[in-house]
Amino acid sequence: MLKEIGHVEVGQPFDNFLLIKSSTKGVASNGKPFLTLILQDSSGDIEAKLWDATEEDEKTFVAEEVVKITGEITLFRGKPQLKIQHIRPAQPIDGVRVEDFLEKAPVPLEELEERITEVIFEMTNPNIQRIVRYFIKKYESTLFSFPAAVKNHHEYVSGLAHHICTMLNLARDFKRNYPEINLDLLYAGIILHDLGKLTELSGPVAPSYTLEGKLLGHIPIMAEEIGKAADELDIVGEEVTILKHMILSHHGKGEWGSPKVPLVREAEILHLIDLIDAKMNMMNRALNKVKPGDFTERLFAMENRSFYKPTFE
Amino acid sequence: MLKEIGHVEVGQPFDNFLLIKSSTKGVASNGKPFLTLILQDSSGDIEAKLWDATEEDEKTFVAEEVVKITGEITLFRGKPQLKIQHIRPAQPIDGVRVEDFLEKAPVPLEELEERITEVIFEMTNPNIQRIVRYFIKKYESTLFSFPAAVKNHHEYVSGLAHHICTMLNLARDFKRNYPEINLDLLYAGIILHDLGKLTELSGPVAPSYTLEGKLLGHIPIMAEEIGKAADELDIVGEEVTILKHMILSHHGKGEWGSPKVPLVREAEILHLIDLIDAKMNMMNRALNKVKPGDFTERLFAMENRSFYKPTFE
Amino acid sequence: MLKEIGHVEVGQPFDNFLLIKSSTKGVASNGKPFLTLILQDSSGDIEAKLWDATEEDEKTFVAEEVVKITGEITLFRGKPQLKIQHIRPAQPIDGVRVEDFLEKAPVPLEELEERITEVIFEMTNPNIQRIVRYFIKKYESTLFSFPAAVKNHHEYVSGLAHHICTMLNLARDFKRNYPEINLDLLYAGIILHDLGKLTELSGPVAPSYTLEGKLLGHIPIMAEEIGKAADELDIVGEEVTILKHMILSHHGKGEWGSPKVPLVREAEILHLIDLIDAKMNMMNRALNKVKPGDFTERLFAMENRSFYKPTFE
Amino acid sequence: MLKEIGHVEVGQPFDNFLLIKSSTKGVASNGKPFLTLILQDSSGDIEAKLWDATEEDEKTFVAEEVVKITGEITLFRGKPQLKIQHIRPAQPIDGVRVEDFLEKAPVPLEELEERITEVIFEMTNPNIQRIVRYFIKKYESTLFSFPAAVKNHHEYVSGLAHHICTMLNLARDFKRNYPEINLDLLYAGIILHDLGKLTELSGPVAPSYTLEGKLLGHIPIMAEEIGKAADELDIVGEEVTILKHMILSHHGKGEWGSPKVPLVREAEILHLIDLIDAKMNMMNRALNKVKPGDFTERLFAMENRSFYKPTFE
Amino acid sequence: MLKEIGHVEVGQPFDNFLLIKSSTKGVASNGKPFLTLILQDSSGDIEAKLWDATEEDEKTFVAEEVVKITGEITLFRGKPQLKIQHIRPAQPIDGVRVEDFLEKAPVPLEELEERITEVIFEMTNPNIQRIVRYFIKKYESTLFSFPAAVKNHHEYVSGLAHHICTMLNLARDFKRNYPEINLDLLYAGIILHDLGKLTELSGPVAPSYTLEGKLLGHIPIMAEEIGKAADELDIVGEEVTILKHMILSHHGKGEWGSPKVPLVREAEILHLIDLIDAKMNMMNRALNKVKPGDFTERLFAMENRSFYKPTFE
Amino acid sequence: MLKEIGHVEVGQPFDNFLLIKSSTKGVASNGKPFLTLILQDSSGDIEAKLWDATEEDEKTFVAEEVVKITGEITLFRGKPQLKIQHIRPAQPIDGVRVEDFLEKAPVPLEELEERITEVIFEMTNPNIQRIVRYFIKKYESTLFSFPAAVKNHHEYVSGLAHHICTMLNLARDFKRNYPEINLDLLYAGIILHDLGKLTELSGPVAPSYTLEGKLLGHIPIMAEEIGKAADELDIVGEEVTILKHMILSHHGKGEWGSPKVPLVREAEILHLIDLIDAKMNMMNRALNKVKPGDFTERLFAMENRSFYKPTFE
Repeated sequence: MLKEIGHVEVGQPFDNFLLIKSSTKGVASNGKPFLTLILQDSSGDIEAKLWDATEEDEKTFVAEEVVKITGEITLFRGKPQLKIQHIRPAQPIDGVRVEDFLEKAPVPLEELEERITEVIFEMTNPNIQRIVRYFIKKYESTLFSFPAAVKNHHEYVSGLAHHICTMLNLARDFKRNYPEINLDLLYAGIILHDLGKLTELSGPVAPSYTLEGKLLGHIPIMAEEIGKAADELDIVGEEVTILKHMILSHHGKGEWGSPKVPLVREAEILHLIDLIDAKMNMMNRALNKVKPGDFTERLFAMENRSFYKPTFE
Repeated sequence: MLKEIGHVEVGQPFDNFLLIKSSTKGVASNGKPFLTLILQDSSGDIEAKLWDATEEDEKTFVAEEVVKITGEITLFRGKPQLKIQHIRPAQPIDGVRVEDFLEKAPVPLEELEERITEVIFEMTNPNIQRIVRYFIKKYESTLFSFPAAVKNHHEYVSGLAHHICTMLNLARDFKRNYPEINLDLLYAGIILHDLGKLTELSGPVAPSYTLEGKLLGHIPIMAEEIGKAADELDIVGEEVTILKHMILSHHGKGEWGSPKVPLVREAEILHLIDLIDAKMNMMNRALNKVKPGDFTERLFAMENRSFYKPTFE
Repeated sequence: MLKEIGHVEVGQPFDNFLLIKSSTKGVASNGKPFLTLILQDSSGDIEAKLWDATEEDEKTFVAEEVVKITGEITLFRGKPQLKIQHIRPAQPIDGVRVEDFLEKAPVPLEELEERITEVIFEMTNPNIQRIVRYFIKKYESTLFSFPAAVKNHHEYVSGLAHHICTMLNLARDFKRNYPEINLDLLYAGIILHDLGKLTELSGPVAPSYTLEGKLLGHIPIMAEEIGKAADELDIVGEEVTILKHMILSHHGKGEWGSPKVPLVREAEILHLIDLIDAKMNMMNRALNKVKPGDFTERLFAMENRSFYKPTFE
Repeated sequence: MLKEIGHVEVGQPFDNFLLIKSSTKGVASNGKPFLTLILQDSSGDIEAKLWDATEEDEKTFVAEEVVKITGEITLFRGKPQLKIQHIRPAQPIDGVRVEDFLEKAPVPLEELEERITEVIFEMTNPNIQRIVRYFIKKYESTLFSFPAAVKNHHEYVSGLAHHICTMLNLARDFKRNYPEINLDLLYAGIILHDLGKLTELSGPVAPSYTLEGKLLGHIPIMAEEIGKAADELDIVGEEVTILKHMILSHHGKGEWGSPKVPLVREAEILHLIDLIDAKMNMMNRALNKVKPGDFTERLFAMENRSFYKPTFE
Repeated sequence: MLKEIGHVEVGQPFDNFLLIKSSTKGVASNGKPFLTLILQDSSGDIEAKLWDATEEDEKTFVAEEVVKITGEITLFRGKPQLKIQHIRPAQPIDGVRVEDFLEKAPVPLEELEERITEVIFEMTNPNIQRIVRYFIKKYESTLFSFPAAVKNHHEYVSGLAHHICTMLNLARDFKRNYPEINLDLLYAGIILHDLGKLTELSGPVAPSYTLEGKLLGHIPIMAEEIGKAADELDIVGEEVTILKHMILSHHGKGEWGSPKVPLVREAEILHLIDLIDAKMNMMNRALNKVKPGDFTERLFAMENRSFYKPTFE
Repeated sequence: MLKEIGHVEVGQPFDNFLLIKSSTKGVASNGKPFLTLILQDSSGDIEAKLWDATEEDEKTFVAEEVVKITGEITLFRGKPQLKIQHIRPAQPIDGVRVEDFLEKAPVPLEELEERITEVIFEMTNPNIQRIVRYFIKKYESTLFSFPAAVKNHHEYVSGLAHHICTMLNLARDFKRNYPEINLDLLYAGIILHDLGKLTELSGPVAPSYTLEGKLLGHIPIMAEEIGKAADELDIVGEEVTILKHMILSHHGKGEWGSPKVPLVREAEILHLIDLIDAKMNMMNRALNKVKPGDFTERLFAMENRSFYKPTFE
């Protein structure tokens, strides 16, 4: 059976398909061009050098393409590297699909779709419900494939929908403890809060920032979209202002990209739930990789902390 | 029927019992001593001046005493003041109890006791369970009467137990969303995290900081208590270290009084849940006082923000 | 001749028209309602109390109304106060206009209008020119009357247009020193940057923050408006993204309300020119009030500094 | 005569005993394991690679062992490296002792012991004296060998005792200038302030952080120990609270690990004296390494400054 | 016997001489001018109002004049005030001297002069010695009367010399513990570090900031003076640069007014000793005013802390 | 024709003159010394290694010398390196001048000199004019060759004079918009503000910091120089204090090296204009290197931002 890249050890041969995550041209000390490829499947990724690359190679071996590679795992400056013996683009006859090489949310896609539909169905405020429905329809083709971020948390296929659904569950539980919460508003805020990322990022595979993403950011992008949706749906009312406010304030403070701090209860809760789910996702995934009695790697987005996994249960 | 102080208007007479929250001696412009009393019942509080106070008065009208007052509500520099016509200490025959004059948690005491008992019963780690049981027994006389803080959040009778119980519920809900959580550990952290306040504060009525509270603080006080309890119960093991760590780190960072940041998943969650319940308590109580379409007063412990109450549902 | 309020001294009588800037209801120590009025003309403002105010008075003496007052200037806790002997609303026959009671920009309105028209005429990029024209037309009724801010700088009638025109002049001069500047882009950024204030603030007279102002702020409001204008004008292109970016980033950093920092040269210059004109306006107005050899009052928006006015020329 | 590692130059042979400070396993580019050893004697340290390491080697060449090495000094990426030709564990017959390979305090151990004994003898407050005596007895086996820190200052054998003794001398001198100081209290604070490090660190040779060290830290560890000692000695009184406060506050502020800031004069002085001795130790040792007219290396714990050594006397 | 102002109680008469610390003109509610006088003797200070003040009064009752007052102590808004019944300027025949009304250093002036002379005598580096001698001579008339600051620490007559002398003693003690210190350099830094205050402040009585003080500050003023002194004395050499550096860096960091951080050992020590003596002076004086078991007032320049005075010895 | 270093590609030969920017001695893995040379001409710079360097080589190939080199461009760790085949010092007969190898201001030197002379001529305040003239004369040999900084902005020959002249133009334009400005004062501040760099830096070629530069900094150096110049010219008056203040405050705040913040209008403007010209210089030079549609490299001194170059005009 063919081994995935995350399960091959240094010194062993490799012979399997991999997705090109990125391809960067360099010039070798002899003046000849070469390509640095980052290759991945759903088990992990590895670097490889394609020496003496032709112009043809440059056009063929680009990001988001799947390739068949024969080679060997070596070490270079302490990190594993794949030494390429043979490389070719995948053919239709190979029957491989890009999505099979990507990490995915740990929950089936259907469950995520269903949960969001259910929540919209429960809403009783018609203005809020119509706006949310509008966006689910508008983004049905991308919402369920995008990651929630380029790195740090939920950075996998369907990561955004997975993040939304866990947040919806937390919101439902909060309501039980604090009945004053306006659940329609909170649900809507959760579903909409990061949809601007569908414009900010380039796509579900090897996502990077678009020009709009870099110059505007997902927060103002989405606030504007809500304004336009309300106009299109002929909805006038405080709900529109409050939903925009929730989007604008959901990073919690100016230094973190929110032009307004939360000034409505549900906006504050949205910020808290967003924070909790991002943190839990980072901690749990890091802790899953270590044994009891050990510390995790440092988590950059959690103030660079290493977390300890206790030895008792 | 006798009116409570929160329901009498400027210009009206007042004739009822009140609890002295604080009593401060001053000297009038004629050189004679007077007392500034802050008087309260469960509906609110008001200031009053007792002019020409004798030494006898100074000893009689002290904090935590109940008095019977006849007088009238006036305004002084824009704030209501109770003009005293007659004042006397309450007698046994009056049948009034200090606790009737204090704000209380909105949940019956029995429910709080029951919930905590239930949680301890569910624990399966014997070391953790024994330590928690030890403290519930040790503090049974004060745990259910103390506030959770002197001001800002849960600053009422049984506030601490109320805070603990809501946090326990949130923890149970978190576990459903994130099954990796060690619930015994999290429950224990929640129950123990603020018990140092029983030493840091002077009591449930008109609480102030003790000398130990000012010089040590509830966090190191409780960490030490856990160490002593473990010694007494002959418990050795990582659970003791982790529980101490959870106490020490639950304020989240150095600037907020924690000598260590959270480095264990359940310690991080404890910090988050503590934050959430404090914030929800502050926001909900402030929002309950205003009408839809208005902003609350500024909440000091929430970065001085005013929250808006939407007009729609 | 009738004296303006800024020229009457303590102990002197007053008999003239004034504009009500704000009217707040209070309750006196005897339990009766009264109104605290802030009254102004273009020379300054003063506080007055209207005792024993009827419900009729409350409805009559409201903000933005002009009144005729006879009274006397007294001192209360070290500050001048107008003691009202007689007060009545202005009548049409009095021939007074609200605008005569307000501080105004030191440049005639026509000059401001002309300068902006001229600048638009000079533009050569059609996309940018059409967007700017769209907004000048849309806001022609308010743009030339609003202040640039509620306090600190250009807080007078036509303050916004005055601020824009000085910035346009600075931009023209910058271009001479740094020919790389795209002047169309910079001019457009200057004209549009604060138009969101026309929605954020309530009006030119006694401006306060609207609900949208408080929850969204003028920066996201204007970024959204540009998006909608581009849709309406069928303009697609990088100009739209860059103009939105200039609006979003013109406060310079997150802590100051910009969700993005300036990442385009003209966005950085817009931020700098905005800063310069605000600072010059604050410094010059404060220095105009003091004599050589003295320090100004502390300027809150300039890090609370007092500026010294040298004695030489 | 055999040369120490700090005195051998690049290109020269080496043949002597060295202590293993740390040993880390790696995998070479050919897939074979190797060990990276940090080797030291009291003159300095150097890196060495042990290629093709057997499992036996891994167990033999571990931290805190002494080895006999023959080899040569080479350069690798600009830093000296010891190329191993022959390596063997030291034998009892070699007559070498671990402590001979470690840097030591520049003051004889006996002097340090004597100075501390003397100070305790001078104390007149019996509660304070008994608590200090208790800890000197409890930790007599480790107090005089531990460093004061893992790096930065006093990071050598007996560094902690050296640090304590210099601080005691500074305290005595302070008392002469400020007679209000309570010298018993200050002396006690100095002796006890860092004893938690005996639990926080693993030992005097190649010290690392223990789990308790990482999760609790030496400050809360020691505060708890004082509480337990007082219980054991049946000491009740403000002295116990104040001593705990001094331990808790001696880092001066929350960001630096103190859950309370100093609120007692002697606590503030303890913090200042601790700071002074750490800074003097760092500056003096760095300046001793450079010639007049030069700057020292950057000192990380002194805000990354380089200090200048003047050319005059 | 005549009572000093700090020893008279509310309701009692007062009849004695006082120094005018400040005199400010105001206008009463009847439009007539009055003077607000702050009056002091060495026991404390008090406010008084001189109603219906004539132009003659304004010229007579100015800061730094001594007056004879008969009156009574009353309370105004909770603070004591001196009600003036009769006031007249002191006459030569009264035999009172301004200096008798000021707080003074607790050490005799001669001791301070002697100590500084002694230290200069001990110096062995001729360049340093000559520069220090130059300044002692230049400022002999003011150095021994100025305070070290306008408020916070050593804010009394001869405060600067007192501050210098205590620092010199601390320096001598440091040298014993750290023999590497260049004592000539440190002594010189201590004597010179604050001499710029003789230009920055207006004088020993009721000191305020001069224009040079406000616009330049004592640090650059003194650095320049050293440069000029070296030119005048024809001294060339690194000593001049290092002495200037010590002056420039003695506040320790940019935020505290030092354009350079300390980069020479003795500059760092100067900063530390300055800090210590300022802190000790503030703490000791505040603690002297309270009883064991109490907390001091908040000390603004010590991060607003209140210090506790223990009950044991 | 001989190619400059910035126009030769990897793999090509090189044969031309270059200036040595820096020369650092190292020891190779074989124990032999080598030199690392940074070589430059006005088109850019490159690193080269001179292996087996003799003592003679060390003395010959030092900073600020011009050499003739034959070699080849290779890559080392991804960066171009010049492999030396032959190297010799330039001879008088070669006719090369150091200044031809340096980057220069884009404006002819004569224009810069003329502009400054013109501005001094326009001044009407004689005190200010004489002081400025004094410094132009004093520094005529260096002022027109020094850079304005070691890196970041205007870091080329005549950079300081170029910076001054652009600032003078901006000042003239500001005056037109804000006629209140005292132009003599502002012009003088601009010309003098950075003259301390002529002492702080070592020279126009390969500038480094002098000891005075490191320990005092250009700000206090220049403030002192103004004091000495005023003494020499017998100028007494507020102009001297204000000019020193402008120098001291021109970095805007303490953290940036100014011991005083700007407290005079022209001091604030000087700070703003200095900031603007530094920023424009950095942005323009970075943007000139990229194509429309690309981002610049990160600019360290502009908060590490990358700037976008729009695709439209």
